[in-house]
Amino acid sequence: MKAAIFKGKDQVELGERPDPKIQEDTDAVVRVVRGCVCGSDLWYYRGINPHKVGSIGHEFIGVVDQVGENVSDLKKGDFVVAPFQFSDGTCENCKAGVPTSCLHGGGFGNGDSDGGQGEYVRVPFAGYTLVKVPGKDFSDETLASLTALSDVMCTGYHAAVSAGVKEGDTVAVIGDGAVGLCAIISAKLLGAKRIIALSRNPARQKLAREFGATDIVPERGEEAVEAVLKLVGNGVGVDGVLECVGTDESMSTAVSIARPGSTIGVVGHPGHVQVPFPLLFFKNVTLKGGIAPARLYIPKLLPDVLSGKINPGLVFDLVTDLENIKEAYDAMDERRAVKSLLKISEI
Amino acid sequence: MKAAIFKGKDQVELGERPDPKIQEDTDAVVRVVRGCVCGSDLWYYRGINPHKVGSIGHEFIGVVDQVGENVSDLKKGDFVVAPFQFSDGTCENCKAGVPTSCLHGGGFGNGDSDGGQGEYVRVPFAGYTLVKVPGKDFSDETLASLTALSDVMCTGYHAAVSAGVKEGDTVAVIGDGAVGLCAIISAKLLGAKRIIALSRNPARQKLAREFGATDIVPERGEEAVEAVLKLVGNGVGVDGVLECVGTDESMSTAVSIARPGSTIGVVGHPGHVQVPFPLLFFKNVTLKGGIAPARLYIPKLLPDVLSGKINPGLVFDLVTDLENIKEAYDAMDERRAVKSLLKISEI
Repeated sequence: MKAAIFKGKDQVELGERPDPKIQEDTDAVVRVVRGCVCGSDLWYYRGINPHKVGSIGHEFIGVVDQVGENVSDLKKGDFVVAPFQFSDGTCENCKAGVPTSCLHGGGFGNGDSDGGQGEYVRVPFAGYTLVKVPGKDFSDETLASLTALSDVMCTGYHAAVSAGVKEGDTVAVIGDGAVGLCAIISAKLLGAKRIIALSRNPARQKLAREFGATDIVPERGEEAVEAVLKLVGNGVGVDGVLECVGTDESMSTAVSIARPGSTIGVVGHPGHVQVPFPLLFFKNVTLKGGIAPARLYIPKLLPDVLSGKINPGLVFDLVTDLENIKEAYDAMDERRAVKSLLKISEI
Repeated sequence: MKAAIFKGKDQVELGERPDPKIQEDTDAVVRVVRGCVCGSDLWYYRGINPHKVGSIGHEFIGVVDQVGENVSDLKKGDFVVAPFQFSDGTCENCKAGVPTSCLHGGGFGNGDSDGGQGEYVRVPFAGYTLVKVPGKDFSDETLASLTALSDVMCTGYHAAVSAGVKEGDTVAVIGDGAVGLCAIISAKLLGAKRIIALSRNPARQKLAREFGATDIVPERGEEAVEAVLKLVGNGVGVDGVLECVGTDESMSTAVSIARPGSTIGVVGHPGHVQVPFPLLFFKNVTLKGGIAPARLYIPKLLPDVLSGKINPGLVFDLVTDLENIKEAYDAMDERRAVKSLLKISEI
């Protein structure tokens, strides 16, 4: 089959990988309908984080093509959303509601396992991992939003849930990437009254407002802190922060604008973040979040996507295909695109 | 009046300070009955953290000696516990339940403000800050436990509350200082079934068991992690961690033994801690806590102290007076004592 192959810094190209087959009786093979490029893929593409040469891409939706004997609730032809990690649903961590730490789980597109930027994916523990979507007749817009459920929308939602956003809150969202934008959708879904988006890109500011941001702060660092505190006007800070970047500066800003006793929902890339612990401590600010349990959020968010209540697919501002995989990466790398969608097949 | 004077690294001595007077009509002056030395005072004594030359000590119980005109619920002769910080109870942060971030609050014994290691203390916002204790006839043991409510017992309780300890939990308490020992009491109060105390000091291990520890782990670092995981036996870690030390190693141990999705209640000194953020993030472990809102916890814990249900005063294993203030510090500094109590006057 055709699949994107990661070959190192600045190198990703269309190549060939073996057609996936059922290996365990709990597997399914999915024909990918839409895949996409994640902000975290860029960390590999930029050579900041290591990634094995081979398969890549962890977000996809598709149609079930083969099922193992022990996959009870799925059949060939089912249309599914895949969370960006597979999990068994039965281990100690899955039972405790943390499928991202599944003792037998793993990720797609890690160099060895099939990636979402390819024609087919073998999905372990398919009966638990994959979430069936009712119906088959979807617009391109809805397919894009369903693809967003695979990772970014759930990750943004994790920021909002972790920050404990509730009816009437004033919150700040740090980061105007696809996850930050989905965090704005999520803060609104959970009832935030005022949503301050830290964004300096005009196109993203526009989308932020469309998604529910009530205020835009283009400043960064100390100036951003001052601007947010001035906007809030209570002298203490926002009721919750959704940290969707993952740098020392973004984390420091988050702690500085969080009101004492509040929570920072953290979903930004964690690899290079220093937590300003004394400030956090003396403000009694909580740090909650991490890698998003997409498997748990997809069923919650699916009805809102299907009804059109939320449209996270709008974060895809470049639509291309596997033939143009390098451009899909380059456009994001050069910040010409927020997020690139890959049309791989049709339902 | 007589009061301990901090003069620099390894230097604390009995000296004279002006007798406190009512300065604001919301002040009270308290005659100190018991004071004590805090683990955090040692950070100053050891020259690790800076402290102004002057008053010191932030924990005390005593008898109201003078009251300002606007202190409605207190009168001369009332017996009170002081939380280690004063707060107005009316500002934006106090209203939100975070009196430790009171916009007009502050600490006792900071070099300028009267300290608990002295004969009298002027208490700002006394009507809100001080918690009245019913009765006047208390044993030395009860007075010691009431003194513990001023800081360490509430700080240990904050670790347990922040970690979300609930009925039936298996938790680990890192640190066998006075706060760690009070965290054990607190974990038991909140219903933990299994309490693993990380302690290598035989006397403290004994007290830990008396307070409710069911298991003792004397190892540190990687060996401690292995030992705890082996004890728990579920392959994933404890339901909650109470971090009562405040070093890179203790924080790293905490994150390593916390089961995915669980919470670390942090109350250890924050000045020198690096948070291992990627590990925290990928395990979805929450960091919650900070400086303890003692003012909120004292009324909750007071009945349990008065009924003898909890005896946090047992952490005081050296009882002395202001004349021997240097020995009170040295005994703790040299780990000959867990915590030193100062008998300053009688009710």
